[in-house]
Amino acid sequence: MNSSAAVDTLLEKALAGDIRSIARIISLIENDSPAKDALLKRIYPMTGKAMVIGITGSPGAGKSTLTDKVIEHFRLMGKRVGVIAVDPSSPFSGGAILADRIRMQRHTGDTGVYIRSMGTRGSLGGLSRGTRESVILLDACGYDVIIIETVGVGQSEVDIIKIADTVCLVLVPGMGDDIQIMKAGIMEIANVFAVNKADKPGVDRVAAEIRLMLDLVKERPWVPPVHLTVAENGSGIDELVASLVAHGDFLKNNPDGVRREWRRLSFEVEEILLQHVTRVAERTWNTYKTDKVMETLLSRKSNPYLVAEEILQKIIPGTSEV
Amino acid sequence: MNSSAAVDTLLEKALAGDIRSIARIISLIENDSPAKDALLKRIYPMTGKAMVIGITGSPGAGKSTLTDKVIEHFRLMGKRVGVIAVDPSSPFSGGAILADRIRMQRHTGDTGVYIRSMGTRGSLGGLSRGTRESVILLDACGYDVIIIETVGVGQSEVDIIKIADTVCLVLVPGMGDDIQIMKAGIMEIANVFAVNKADKPGVDRVAAEIRLMLDLVKERPWVPPVHLTVAENGSGIDELVASLVAHGDFLKNNPDGVRREWRRLSFEVEEILLQHVTRVAERTWNTYKTDKVMETLLSRKSNPYLVAEEILQKIIPGTSEV
Repeated sequence: MNSSAAVDTLLEKALAGDIRSIARIISLIENDSPAKDALLKRIYPMTGKAMVIGITGSPGAGKSTLTDKVIEHFRLMGKRVGVIAVDPSSPFSGGAILADRIRMQRHTGDTGVYIRSMGTRGSLGGLSRGTRESVILLDACGYDVIIIETVGVGQSEVDIIKIADTVCLVLVPGMGDDIQIMKAGIMEIANVFAVNKADKPGVDRVAAEIRLMLDLVKERPWVPPVHLTVAENGSGIDELVASLVAHGDFLKNNPDGVRREWRRLSFEVEEILLQHVTRVAERTWNTYKTDKVMETLLSRKSNPYLVAEEILQKIIPGTSEV
Repeated sequence: MNSSAAVDTLLEKALAGDIRSIARIISLIENDSPAKDALLKRIYPMTGKAMVIGITGSPGAGKSTLTDKVIEHFRLMGKRVGVIAVDPSSPFSGGAILADRIRMQRHTGDTGVYIRSMGTRGSLGGLSRGTRESVILLDACGYDVIIIETVGVGQSEVDIIKIADTVCLVLVPGMGDDIQIMKAGIMEIANVFAVNKADKPGVDRVAAEIRLMLDLVKERPWVPPVHLTVAENGSGIDELVASLVAHGDFLKNNPDGVRREWRRLSFEVEEILLQHVTRVAERTWNTYKTDKVMETLLSRKSNPYLVAEEILQKIIPGTSEV
């Protein structure tokens, strides 16, 4: 399976649109298979065409239903849509919040839609490298729109800006205080706001509070629009999708977009590089971590700083001032 | 200031109990000053005596007030107490949720208490390496009890287990559903529970739900006790502190404690090692990141995978299969 020829065949099929092959490659990515690096390096030049949209927000904000409606809308426009739904998992039980993933199965049978759930990096943590790598794959495979849906818990909310071109934050009535206190980080990275469940009381207050926060920032080339939506019945989705597309166009024609791309590429090189050196470091430590070494640590004859330095010398001989 | 002799003097004073010198060294740590590594390596052998307690929970659970009362209690027992209060900051505004830090100023003038606020690693993210390093410093400086207070947002909640010996989770009445859905990860790492604001309605329900969750796990050597507290008036704090101390003693006399220490030491070596290789990688990429290289990336003549590989060869020549 992981032989070079087998991976080549798999990739060929995936690029031709075979969904099973795409799924199998994403599994290679998730399992951090040695085969994935060569593959990603090879397909990277085929990327850069897709619109990458992040949809995030608190649990219970109705993101799955909203995403579902956004998919439908893009399908009507003739676009192929890939979705990475990110589930935060417990670091201990391994359980995932599957929410209403079932709802998405509505698209089963439509070969123009591919939906995949992925875990986060550790516990409640950030988006995994695998999320970005899956976007690269889906982009190369010709998906026009790639949606990353994240449950807005912790780091993954903020990491989304490193992957998505356009970030849509989904809020709901009745979370006024949360907006002001807890969501400062995410409020600042959102490009489009959806106040969902807009048929519920309190919708005007949330919308007003978002606008109030946005007013604090003077003069910016893109002012994030605030849309009222009722995902359940599709109300407001047209306007929301129009804003998502408009923000994508804005980035293409604006120095802001180039700067963003510059930052992203620089960040991407750094992340791939760190992935490489981390693997070398972990492999070396695992080889070196004998009972004897651990015993010197437990008995406090040595200490983690000394041991780490010895291993560093094995990896990069001659490194002194680090 | 960063000259070796100046740092030596600073360290000498800190070890003698001078709070200003301790504060200045923590600033060196926070700023990731080159002087800090040698310093930490030197003081590490002096550590291992302190009881390290993590206090975490949702915003508004009354953690600061509770921490305040726990400090008072340990002071009455004649213990010196260090506190690292971790504030999640916005990645963009740089602003911190200072909460009711003011309340802690009550201890100003008591040289047996040192309180310091620190940021998290990025945005809503995990505990920074600096948090652990500050614990090492306070331990070496003779603080008997070190409390890490984290606002329970995202990764920092779960990271706490890597630093603290004993984790106290503070809950409040009226958050029943949250317990079941969102807090799975943190519920599993708590060693002691405090249901604070126990004079509010709903306290029995929260306590019952915690016990229900705990019952799901059969046979464990330490069954986390559930305490009802009213931090405002000090009610229940005696029992809470007794449980914190009891858990510390439990770890000392149990194979579980040794395994935990083994894991922690292994993790610590790995983390220090990764810090080293990450610095080398970042420095190399920054040197190599010329406008010309970025231009080849922006124009898609090269790609991040190829560039990262070239840089890896500069850091660790001959690394092939990574």
